[in-house]
Amino acid sequence: MTKNKVEAILEEMTREEKVDQLMQLATLFYEGSRQKGKITGPMEEMGIELNTVHNSGSVLGGAGAEEVKSIQKAHLEKNRLGIPLLMMADIIHGFKTIFPVPLAIGCSWDTDLAEMSAEIAAKEASVSGVHVTFAPMVDLVRDPRWGRVMESTGEDSFLNASFAKAFVRGFQGENLETDMDRVAACVKHFAAYGAPAGGRDYNTVDMSERELRESYLPAYKAALDEGCEMVMTAFNTVDSIPASANKKLMRHLLRDEWGFDGVIISDWGAVKETIAHGVAADEAEAAQKAIEAGVDIEMMTTCYVKHLKRLVEEGKVDEHLLDDSVLRILKLKEKLGLFENPYRGADEEKEKELILCESHRQSARELAVKSCVLLKNESVLPLHKEQKVALIGPFAESGDLLGPWSWQGSKEDAVKLSDGFKTKTKGENLFISRGCDIVTALEGEFEKAVETARKADVIVLALGEHSKMSGEAKCRADIRLPEVQLELIKKLKELGKPVSVILFNGRPLDLHGVIDEADAVLEAWYPGTEGGHAIADLVYGDKNPSGKLSMSFPYSVGQVPVYYNAYTTGRPKLEPVTEYVSKYLDIPNEPLLQFGFGLSYTTFSYNEPQISADAFNSQETLSASVTVTNTGDVPGEEVVQFYVRDVTGEVVRPLKELKGFKKMYLEPGQSEKVSFTVSEEMLRYHHSDLTFKSDPGEFVAFIGPDSNTGEPLNFSLTSSFQRV
Amino acid sequence: MTKNKVEAILEEMTREEKVDQLMQLATLFYEGSRQKGKITGPMEEMGIELNTVHNSGSVLGGAGAEEVKSIQKAHLEKNRLGIPLLMMADIIHGFKTIFPVPLAIGCSWDTDLAEMSAEIAAKEASVSGVHVTFAPMVDLVRDPRWGRVMESTGEDSFLNASFAKAFVRGFQGENLETDMDRVAACVKHFAAYGAPAGGRDYNTVDMSERELRESYLPAYKAALDEGCEMVMTAFNTVDSIPASANKKLMRHLLRDEWGFDGVIISDWGAVKETIAHGVAADEAEAAQKAIEAGVDIEMMTTCYVKHLKRLVEEGKVDEHLLDDSVLRILKLKEKLGLFENPYRGADEEKEKELILCESHRQSARELAVKSCVLLKNESVLPLHKEQKVALIGPFAESGDLLGPWSWQGSKEDAVKLSDGFKTKTKGENLFISRGCDIVTALEGEFEKAVETARKADVIVLALGEHSKMSGEAKCRADIRLPEVQLELIKKLKELGKPVSVILFNGRPLDLHGVIDEADAVLEAWYPGTEGGHAIADLVYGDKNPSGKLSMSFPYSVGQVPVYYNAYTTGRPKLEPVTEYVSKYLDIPNEPLLQFGFGLSYTTFSYNEPQISADAFNSQETLSASVTVTNTGDVPGEEVVQFYVRDVTGEVVRPLKELKGFKKMYLEPGQSEKVSFTVSEEMLRYHHSDLTFKSDPGEFVAFIGPDSNTGEPLNFSLTSSFQRV
Repeated sequence: MTKNKVEAILEEMTREEKVDQLMQLATLFYEGSRQKGKITGPMEEMGIELNTVHNSGSVLGGAGAEEVKSIQKAHLEKNRLGIPLLMMADIIHGFKTIFPVPLAIGCSWDTDLAEMSAEIAAKEASVSGVHVTFAPMVDLVRDPRWGRVMESTGEDSFLNASFAKAFVRGFQGENLETDMDRVAACVKHFAAYGAPAGGRDYNTVDMSERELRESYLPAYKAALDEGCEMVMTAFNTVDSIPASANKKLMRHLLRDEWGFDGVIISDWGAVKETIAHGVAADEAEAAQKAIEAGVDIEMMTTCYVKHLKRLVEEGKVDEHLLDDSVLRILKLKEKLGLFENPYRGADEEKEKELILCESHRQSARELAVKSCVLLKNESVLPLHKEQKVALIGPFAESGDLLGPWSWQGSKEDAVKLSDGFKTKTKGENLFISRGCDIVTALEGEFEKAVETARKADVIVLALGEHSKMSGEAKCRADIRLPEVQLELIKKLKELGKPVSVILFNGRPLDLHGVIDEADAVLEAWYPGTEGGHAIADLVYGDKNPSGKLSMSFPYSVGQVPVYYNAYTTGRPKLEPVTEYVSKYLDIPNEPLLQFGFGLSYTTFSYNEPQISADAFNSQETLSASVTVTNTGDVPGEEVVQFYVRDVTGEVVRPLKELKGFKKMYLEPGQSEKVSFTVSEEMLRYHHSDLTFKSDPGEFVAFIGPDSNTGEPLNFSLTSSFQRV
Repeated sequence: MTKNKVEAILEEMTREEKVDQLMQLATLFYEGSRQKGKITGPMEEMGIELNTVHNSGSVLGGAGAEEVKSIQKAHLEKNRLGIPLLMMADIIHGFKTIFPVPLAIGCSWDTDLAEMSAEIAAKEASVSGVHVTFAPMVDLVRDPRWGRVMESTGEDSFLNASFAKAFVRGFQGENLETDMDRVAACVKHFAAYGAPAGGRDYNTVDMSERELRESYLPAYKAALDEGCEMVMTAFNTVDSIPASANKKLMRHLLRDEWGFDGVIISDWGAVKETIAHGVAADEAEAAQKAIEAGVDIEMMTTCYVKHLKRLVEEGKVDEHLLDDSVLRILKLKEKLGLFENPYRGADEEKEKELILCESHRQSARELAVKSCVLLKNESVLPLHKEQKVALIGPFAESGDLLGPWSWQGSKEDAVKLSDGFKTKTKGENLFISRGCDIVTALEGEFEKAVETARKADVIVLALGEHSKMSGEAKCRADIRLPEVQLELIKKLKELGKPVSVILFNGRPLDLHGVIDEADAVLEAWYPGTEGGHAIADLVYGDKNPSGKLSMSFPYSVGQVPVYYNAYTTGRPKLEPVTEYVSKYLDIPNEPLLQFGFGLSYTTFSYNEPQISADAFNSQETLSASVTVTNTGDVPGEEVVQFYVRDVTGEVVRPLKELKGFKKMYLEPGQSEKVSFTVSEEMLRYHHSDLTFKSDPGEFVAFIGPDSNTGEPLNFSLTSSFQRV
């Protein structure tokens, strides 16, 4: 279908049909949905008529080939112009084969595997009839109180941008029109949703425009540069205006400055929520502000369908805005091939074949292995298969390993930790006990746990937050493990046996009472469907941990926000520490565990780093390199990290910034040289007038195993270049 | 002396003399200082010569008539043109008669007493030879981790602006040229020093320009509107540029937009610290950026004296900038009458007469009484003089009641709590025990405390933070009382006797373990020289507590920042609480104790509030009123608070904003009507384009005893007015 055909459809549409095309409702409103009988109720609540549903443009949360096809079929029978529905859903970290949560994926520093996870999610979702996924979420996160940090890849804009691109490639592939096993991606949440005041979801976001552009926007931009088809608005305000009514953000920046011409969708109910925000007096004003700001699709509220037609007729809203939005939606449908094949990839047979297939599970296992981060190891891990192991804790036999935003995943499909351990030991030498519940003590379970532990040589504690303790609207002011679990550690530690803790959680935690008590700590996050196998692979040494933290673990919640790329202060805390410097009286300035940190069962040595020259100009590049050697006894992977510090800027500059990384595999004794290219382009930043350019001057590069380690490499840029 | 004479002096000055005039050093550099022998060392460290000192324009921290006169005399003998020194010092909450810390003064809501405290401080300082005080500090504060919240009057810009004006009036009086018993004021820290990331002093400040203008700037502006002579820069960055190098902030906003033509001084070392900030490569660039940004006086570093002359000669810095700065300093000297009388108010005889005189002490006692906030009282307070009282805790007999920034104050002059209690009871019925130290247990003291408590009918615990736990660079990640004190409360609570806690501290604390355990809690802050008397007045019922919190007490540090005038969200937490709203899983959204809260020994009832009309236009005003009745048995004062909510704005608006308050005294049974005028002007706010104006629309007013209480009064504005 050529562009003219889509425009031809637009010309045929009545104003009412055009407005209705912008509405997105959940499946339960549709004929053909399995959730029958619910149609009347919600529709009445919404105040809409059946005809509006028949004219609507997209559906939220439809999945399952049979149901999706049935909805589409019923729709096409009723829709006057035969415009197919777009089926959109939240496929965040896997469809039914659940991968680790995105924060864990961030810790893999493996964008190839991340891309593969998105490709597999797209395969499973597309055969189930999904056309668009509301992913990737690329919000920069610095506050572990916020429950939704688990959905981001972390605190660094460069790392997030790398993953954003990988996820978009994985979801969308090369050609959405021909690749029926891919889905369109929708980057979210535009913008800066990850910075709510107090770490409380949906709360006010306030920052300077430079901070927004410098730190928060790059990952969204990266996703769009990779061809991401859609953008979702954020719930929060940006410069005091809710994102979904923010003309400067969407019309000026996203559309005009960045040239994005894809579909913008509001987050759930966010158009109407501008009333609660107090920037729209009523639904009509909410509709007007949203369409003018650039929202094409209104999700789950009905401000558009109730008011937009009248607003256009009264001359309050330019009809071109309406037409443009409809055209963008129709173009996406065309790009997805829906006019030719409204059912697209939906296929009941392939669903059975593909979903949770062995190959997908293997990939999930591999990514889970790569996502775990070894935080401490006093020669306790890996375990030997002949050791008697007491596996204790609320996560020992729990299927709650999928994490938030895995609505199609099933705990029953998840490999429990106990099952993973059993495959390694054939069930021998393994003693299991619950110990306690996640937040509450259980009658007699402490005692049982102690008895169990007595039988064993080593204790493995499976602890953490249940999956309703993180995710959307799941914010915690106390980011420690629940008290009962800390007591369990203490109790078992008293036995004098080696204690390893495996952590299942969705946010960086204050690990006091854990990392100081345990002999080993493995951060497993929510590892997904194959979690039990992956962790057993690591714990028993069949695999070697290689994850590195993509978000700092604070010393305590009183230190939040703490992140590696903070700006320099005028009174840095240096040795010897004097009275009037930037510090806390009671805790260090540094997080408990820094960005980029993670241990291995082997050790890596870095030789003296080299730089190809100590100065270059904007037409040249430098090469910074180091040789890394596996100095231990087992093969392992190391994430070599490249940071740059701008010594003097026109505005304050971060202490250092990640500019490159490479994950490398080394056999024992093997050495490899890693090189990073330094270009003028990577030295650009937003100046006081918001221009994005570099300055000639002094810089320092660091190549190391984490954000704290690495010998300085000094170099200077002798001429700058400014983007025109 | 006419303007021409000052200009005439300028014309006579060499370029070197002009540059040196901009330098400020501590007294120890000067001949005549008591700190003799230290001259050579520091001067060598600074890399300056004696002649530079002789040319310098002002001195930091000189006080004491004899010393100041001696320094001035020696200076005038050496200074070629006979330009007198300006003597500047930190007179923050009293000179030698120490008043409560400013945060406590904020809780008095009594601007008349605040003004009087500044007047008394000015009297004592001026007879001791001080010409300028580095006060008031009016930084808006929302993060109790920051140690310097004690120096601010709190979290509200309206309240802070009210106190800013009162302090400036108190310090400066009507006419600085004739009133030798006043000092010039220097408002600080420009700007937004109170918002460091993580509550860590000197750390990065980042916010939108609207938030800066809407919340943070009003109090500085209020001080200047009141005629404040000087402004001090902040240590932090504002929009990524250190305040002391921030041209937009000082040259554009403060000088051009606000028209401020007084002296701008850097904070201690802040000019040179732009190097550590990474925006100046060296001292020369630091000097250039600071003078261009608008800093007239460089405090305690020597970038100006070492580089400015050369920068001017090389044409890098316009000589007019230098001349303007010198002229401003000379004009201030002229205004203070220093050319006629370089010793100004300095007078050894008056020093003896005035300092710590009975009248000053009485005022300090009165303000301390008004600054205490009764946080809880289960019919325990006031005590009766015949009750046997156990006064226990590290503050029972401590003189550490003055708080930070009281360098001229002496603990020996402070009335201890035990002494205050003794005056009420003649020492009878009073049993005293230390219990523990501030942060550490003391051998056998717990036991002694229990023994002491056994003898008594009631227990009064004097607990808190020592004065080195708050103030500049004294930041705490844990804002609870030290553990040992929480244990002491528990221990004594076990005796089953009524427990009252008196708190001495510089910041809002997480009061779990205190307010839930004790039967009564009186927040005394650092009450100053007359602390013991003032608290005894309250505890024994000779006075009635009337303070109200000027800063919210968070539920826990994990809730920070929490403040009453937060912006509305799109998903407010309403009853019944649903899953996807802005909330924490583990704590409420509300602080433990809200802004404006404070109890009394009596009770006050508010009748149905009234508003004179339900609509008005920009040419009219409304009157909102309520009648308050003292319904208890004793006389008391009530702070009646007036808040307004803007229902819908062009940008998000706060939940409510303080727009007026009145402190009223009522006898038992007495009623009084309080009225607040509603004007269009008070409804203005910064729009998305930063224009400051009101919008026609709906508003809600609340009159009540705190920021949480009060019946809504709806009204609308029918026409708006925009400042041209």
